[in-house]
Amino acid sequence: MNEVVAGHLQELRRGTVVLACLALLQEPRYGYSLLETLDAAGLQVDGNTLYPLLRRLEKQGLLVSEWNTEETRPRKFYRVTDEGQSVLADMTAEWAALDDVVRSITRSAR
Amino acid sequence: MNEVVAGHLQELRRGTVVLACLALLQEPRYGYSLLETLDAAGLQVDGNTLYPLLRRLEKQGLLVSEWNTEETRPRKFYRVTDEGQSVLADMTAEWAALDDVVRSITRSAR
Repeated sequence: MNEVVAGHLQELRRGTVVLACLALLQEPRYGYSLLETLDAAGLQVDGNTLYPLLRRLEKQGLLVSEWNTEETRPRKFYRVTDEGQSVLADMTAEWAALDDVVRSITRSAR
Repeated sequence: MNEVVAGHLQELRRGTVVLACLALLQEPRYGYSLLETLDAAGLQVDGNTLYPLLRRLEKQGLLVSEWNTEETRPRKFYRVTDEGQSVLADMTAEWAALDDVVRSITRSAR
């Protein structure tokens, strides 16, 4: 039964990770720093989930990456593209609309 | 590109359908009536998605169904179980927490 609950909660969380990545990558960050920021914000994401997701978003043209070789250890920085910015705006609007629906349904059903 | 946006928006919406079904089925409804209510609330769900989902939630013990044979055309009514009610409470709390995260991230990133 706990697995069922976990599955439903996970499904609720999944889409928000993309939204959060696009929002946070309005300033360039490398993967691990993004992971820490998401974690601090209360969105625990595994590296095995986040890194492939970043590559997928880059392939979709929503993020670009760049190596910073000025540091001792080169790091790949990601930031959002104009296209990603536009998807972020759509997702933020959709989130607000969904929140209205969820709140009105859970209120009226009580 | 539109497909990419649609996919991300879809992912955002997916978990909320389960939450909405559990909330709305606090009073017994048959599938088609639930479909209409979701639609009116702004959550367009296809019957090919909703009916299998209802059966899945029943299998998970979150819903029970019952045939109403008093009408000319028998209809299957669904309602939430105590277990479903408890999952609904968990999902509602998770939704509120995610909303806080999303709002704080999209605000601070602007």
